[in-house]
Amino acid sequence: MIKKVKERKSMLVKDISEMKSIIRELKKEGRSIGFVPTMGYLHEGHISLIRASKKENDITVVSIFVNPLQFGKNEDLDRYPRDLERDMEICRREGVDYLFYPSYEDMYPEGFSTYVVVEGITEKLCGAFRPGHFKGVTTVVTKLFNIVKPDRAYFGKKDYQQFKVIQKMVRDLNMDVQVIGCPIVREKDGLAMSSRNKYLSENERKAALSISRSLFEAKRLFDQGVDDVNRLKEEIKRIVLAHPEVREIQYVEIVDPETLESKEKAEKGDIIAIAVFVGDTRLIDNIQL
Amino acid sequence: MIKKVKERKSMLVKDISEMKSIIRELKKEGRSIGFVPTMGYLHEGHISLIRASKKENDITVVSIFVNPLQFGKNEDLDRYPRDLERDMEICRREGVDYLFYPSYEDMYPEGFSTYVVVEGITEKLCGAFRPGHFKGVTTVVTKLFNIVKPDRAYFGKKDYQQFKVIQKMVRDLNMDVQVIGCPIVREKDGLAMSSRNKYLSENERKAALSISRSLFEAKRLFDQGVDDVNRLKEEIKRIVLAHPEVREIQYVEIVDPETLESKEKAEKGDIIAIAVFVGDTRLIDNIQL
Repeated sequence: MIKKVKERKSMLVKDISEMKSIIRELKKEGRSIGFVPTMGYLHEGHISLIRASKKENDITVVSIFVNPLQFGKNEDLDRYPRDLERDMEICRREGVDYLFYPSYEDMYPEGFSTYVVVEGITEKLCGAFRPGHFKGVTTVVTKLFNIVKPDRAYFGKKDYQQFKVIQKMVRDLNMDVQVIGCPIVREKDGLAMSSRNKYLSENERKAALSISRSLFEAKRLFDQGVDDVNRLKEEIKRIVLAHPEVREIQYVEIVDPETLESKEKAEKGDIIAIAVFVGDTRLIDNIQL
Repeated sequence: MIKKVKERKSMLVKDISEMKSIIRELKKEGRSIGFVPTMGYLHEGHISLIRASKKENDITVVSIFVNPLQFGKNEDLDRYPRDLERDMEICRREGVDYLFYPSYEDMYPEGFSTYVVVEGITEKLCGAFRPGHFKGVTTVVTKLFNIVKPDRAYFGKKDYQQFKVIQKMVRDLNMDVQVIGCPIVREKDGLAMSSRNKYLSENERKAALSISRSLFEAKRLFDQGVDDVNRLKEEIKRIVLAHPEVREIQYVEIVDPETLESKEKAEKGDIIAIAVFVGDTRLIDNIQL
């Protein structure tokens, strides 16, 4: 596909109809399309998705769109980190074929009023604290899927609930996309990669480390036979709340990996999911037992 | 395409994944696909859609699915007329290539919980009186579009609001379907074709005729210079309510053809839309000024 990119001289595509016509050509040529939807400010987590896509598809499309629809009123839409030049450099280096970078006005033209809503599993965990968040996610992902028409789409399991919500949406609406969840990528010290880590001060960064540490510790206890959900949760809280920089644990839950229903006894395969405010920065993480 | 149908021996496809794989093959062969989604009990209105599709596409797919999601609790889901044998005969006669007839269980498997919602224009006219109706329509049409992947989809303008809602959904979600509205087909005496006409007794049938007559009369008045919405509506009500079989006019509105907002002064191109209960049967009709 290098030829095609060279012909276009740039991998950057801003226009929806141009993206659609490129995809139409690729489909005609019978190429398989892998898709990595992102909000930009790419990190190793995104790169692992790109590499997975490159491995399994002829063509890899990355999108960057900071989707206002999935941010709450008092959330960090305005300060969400952006650096297109750097992201383009990463995409070039990783051999991304097309970087789709639509404008807000093209994605949500005046009068836009159609939404995709997954009920049930969106009301738990993050969904319980971020009303409208998943409605924004499923709506934008549906739009992106309709534009890019991927054979496979790659999501990080750091956002485990998002991954399951998208999977459910695709199944319920008979979309022709294989939704693939990729393992959480962590810093060497264990902190889950996130564009939002950039917000953290040095002390907050240290405190944030307690999140993954608490999950590893809970898993260690579970592996030793502790399946009492309350005890596991208490241990996590103890570790995380030991840091004064931690403002609040928004939630910590042990849930079924499919339904995301809270469990009373932890079982192999369950997910421990946590959301923590370190200072003003909301971080999430999870681990599978 | 006659060959393909012959190979299959039947045009009837009940299985979603079989329908998908047929479509995949057709797409590979580069065939254009026209789609007529219906709830069955086909009449001349449906046939006009089929013929429009046959004219403009290589392949025509008709679906029959009485979609429970778009019926209210006290509506006529249970008694909605069904006659698959007759519908198949019509489809065969009209040269339909595939008749897609999915089961309820396949369309809405246990745990189904994803919906497509168009806000705004769904809250007016029928939407104001049938809460959840358009949510059911847009959800099932999204599913059907994802299965059949039509280049063009055909809707009767008798359900004018439905036609505009689908058009808006397709635009908002970047779906690759051309949504085509076809003219209302009427009985010789003017009654708009509807599967629900079957419910009418002889006297109700006569009373129902006043609906189209009142619209024709309103248009005649408008053409003569009457643009006062209230006067036009009063004339319509007078004609329709003259019949004791008419239980109620649920609404009569003169609206903008795009936004469906009610008008104060009628203008060329506006839609007069009406919903009437004749006995227990709810009938709708409309006319463009």
